[in-house]
Amino acid sequence: MRFRLALSIAVLGRTPATLRALLQDQPTTWVRGTEGPDTFSAFDVVGHLIDGEETDWIPRARIILARGPNPRFEPYDRFRHWTRNRDRTLESLLAEFAELRAANLQLLRSWNLTDTELSLPGEHPSLGAVTLSQLLAAWVVHDLGHLAQVARVMAKQYRTEVGPWVPYLPVLTDHETPRS
Amino acid sequence: MRFRLALSIAVLGRTPATLRALLQDQPTTWVRGTEGPDTFSAFDVVGHLIDGEETDWIPRARIILARGPNPRFEPYDRFRHWTRNRDRTLESLLAEFAELRAANLQLLRSWNLTDTELSLPGEHPSLGAVTLSQLLAAWVVHDLGHLAQVARVMAKQYRTEVGPWVPYLPVLTDHETPRS
Repeated sequence: MRFRLALSIAVLGRTPATLRALLQDQPTTWVRGTEGPDTFSAFDVVGHLIDGEETDWIPRARIILARGPNPRFEPYDRFRHWTRNRDRTLESLLAEFAELRAANLQLLRSWNLTDTELSLPGEHPSLGAVTLSQLLAAWVVHDLGHLAQVARVMAKQYRTEVGPWVPYLPVLTDHETPRS
Repeated sequence: MRFRLALSIAVLGRTPATLRALLQDQPTTWVRGTEGPDTFSAFDVVGHLIDGEETDWIPRARIILARGPNPRFEPYDRFRHWTRNRDRTLESLLAEFAELRAANLQLLRSWNLTDTELSLPGEHPSLGAVTLSQLLAAWVVHDLGHLAQVARVMAKQYRTEVGPWVPYLPVLTDHETPRS
């Protein structure tokens, strides 16, 4: 499937409502459970997605579109949210994420990006040369990956409770070792 | 985390709205894409969840609660939906799933299950002895596993489009070989 801006926005626009449908008003045990030390809970994922809105996707798109001599991205801090959101509620994070995402998609639409612009280069600090369309596709996949993560992390809270069903429920044994 | 009926219903009640938030009115490319031959699209997952409402979780709970001499479950057909839903739209499947799930949860609540009942035995045709609480926990995990699957399958439609980002997006390389 080839990249298309409209298809991408169709997914990016759904993530806040999807997370809200799954998580809002859920008991703490579902929201704060993790897969082990230094892994994300559902709460952490929402915080991480907020960090992405503020420091990753749109800021990097701006660097590319500025067409400067050195379109190198700032490194991204995957753990900024841990201190930032220490005293926050999930409700307030869900609301903040929805607002930031809506504003960023409005901005993205307003750019009316052409195919030429979507092919402009950026430089990822560790992955090297990328294009604007690859950045936007990665934004979509990043959302979906973290949605899958939230579902998986919640599922694992019941790992012992399913008894002999474990081999029929592969989500319980996915990512036994955390992956980036 | 120990099994609790209220915690379980808190998740089971969210799945229809979560899938609707993610999938309703999405372009066909997101809804019908798969991970390869004989794997499920998002459309297939909704059909599979409907099959679960009609033929799996509640029917098996009834077998257990009947306390008969042979509480053995009927085998479950994971591919019933492929012929059943050939001419259906995603919209109609999402609506049907929401109705079936709501009715099943109403029934489940009406049983006012005691700890004694939750410990009653059933016999899975291949896994052997299980309890009612394990069956209900498996129902929750099954929902979350398929939600993770939908997100993963959608993400993989953009696998080539993210260019060098693949190693930073593990959802793209999860389940390279389909698991049960």
